[in-house]
Amino acid sequence: MTRFALTLEFDGTPFYGLQRQKDGPSVQQAVEDAAFRVLGEEVRLHSAGRTDTGVHALAMRSHMDIAKDIKPFRLMEALNAHLRPDPVAVTQCEVVPDDWHARFSCIGRAYVYRIANRRAPLTLDRDRLWLVPQELDHEAMHRAAQALVGLHDFTTFRSVHCQSDSPVKTLDRLDVEREGEEVRIHAEARSFLHHQVRSMVGCLALVGMGRWREEQLAEALAARDRQALGLNAPSAGLYFVRAVYPEDD
Amino acid sequence: MTRFALTLEFDGTPFYGLQRQKDGPSVQQAVEDAAFRVLGEEVRLHSAGRTDTGVHALAMRSHMDIAKDIKPFRLMEALNAHLRPDPVAVTQCEVVPDDWHARFSCIGRAYVYRIANRRAPLTLDRDRLWLVPQELDHEAMHRAAQALVGLHDFTTFRSVHCQSDSPVKTLDRLDVEREGEEVRIHAEARSFLHHQVRSMVGCLALVGMGRWREEQLAEALAARDRQALGLNAPSAGLYFVRAVYPEDD
Repeated sequence: MTRFALTLEFDGTPFYGLQRQKDGPSVQQAVEDAAFRVLGEEVRLHSAGRTDTGVHALAMRSHMDIAKDIKPFRLMEALNAHLRPDPVAVTQCEVVPDDWHARFSCIGRAYVYRIANRRAPLTLDRDRLWLVPQELDHEAMHRAAQALVGLHDFTTFRSVHCQSDSPVKTLDRLDVEREGEEVRIHAEARSFLHHQVRSMVGCLALVGMGRWREEQLAEALAARDRQALGLNAPSAGLYFVRAVYPEDD
Repeated sequence: MTRFALTLEFDGTPFYGLQRQKDGPSVQQAVEDAAFRVLGEEVRLHSAGRTDTGVHALAMRSHMDIAKDIKPFRLMEALNAHLRPDPVAVTQCEVVPDDWHARFSCIGRAYVYRIANRRAPLTLDRDRLWLVPQELDHEAMHRAAQALVGLHDFTTFRSVHCQSDSPVKTLDRLDVEREGEEVRIHAEARSFLHHQVRSMVGCLALVGMGRWREEQLAEALAARDRQALGLNAPSAGLYFVRAVYPEDD
């Protein structure tokens, strides 16, 4: 068996998330089915993150073990041909050591959350951004966000379905920036709780609208109570952008 | 009657172009139908450009005359509410003098053409960019493009369906730039012939791939013959980005 690392880009809109589900299409199933058509063998896809319905990826990292002798470039091209018309593409493919694991070897994950801060409905960016018509004070959002950076109990920002052993995580970065009518939130950590980014973004938006004082974000964190959550941002604005491994610079 | 100027943003994918067609949906029909539902009167939409099937707009400029007394902001909000689920949005609305005409007063038009220069199929950008897998030399494209700037007979780059009186036009700008895996072509002129931008882009791509020498673009122009056209780029990568009027700075 040879282990192949894949970089995946996908539009999450038509999928019930990355992970295989009993009741609907998933990115994992699309890739595994394409691999079966290419290789004639059943393979299992392991990925750095587990994204929800509607969440996108610019560069998810995954791996699979393959018995058949095939070159990485040929595998990538064949997978892409067989993935159509699903909006999933393999953008990189390489052979990795057998002990390299897309999920367990991963030491950092980065997301970006995109908000369209305007009144007009979305057209070209539909299902790509969260439309927030109220004017957002992105500087207030950025200041408030810094209270979440560091080692904290993130129970407030954790889904009831979260399977993580502990709600305590270290958030390395939570930056808010504006470019024209788009507000972007950059989040980086070794790992995240289920719904953590969307929950943090939802509360940051309340600060941006002026419905929450800046200090209320820190208060919500300190409450360590899901009831203290103000708002969970919709999935369509969320993108998995990077997975980091020890061998990266 | 009061004349209202509108700025429209739309995803051209589901439409048979901007202009009303007998045989399929158009942006014009979508806006006129929404206006009828808002105002109870039949209005006619006039626009700066006439985009084809699949061509997008970030800021098309249009106008319509309305009998009913209504404030621009209220009109914009009501049109947007009634345009759903069509991917068309009114992003600006204002009252203009009766002699202001979206098409005839327009003294400049700007397009951008977006190419995804990569092997992997498009996912999030499907129907938004032209996928060109061969590596493009964008600097060669930019150099070659300069031969088209200025006053020329653009017969080579003109659709047989073009309704313009003359094939002679002045092209003010044709710049090619790269940002990562995306190659963008910026085209500006007082007005364009039908298919002119897509025809110029198609030939530029041949230069970028090395299938045409740089000088062949100038030779194709000099031929003044549609048969000399190398390639017409697909509509999905084309965006109408700006209409210029005398009162603008």
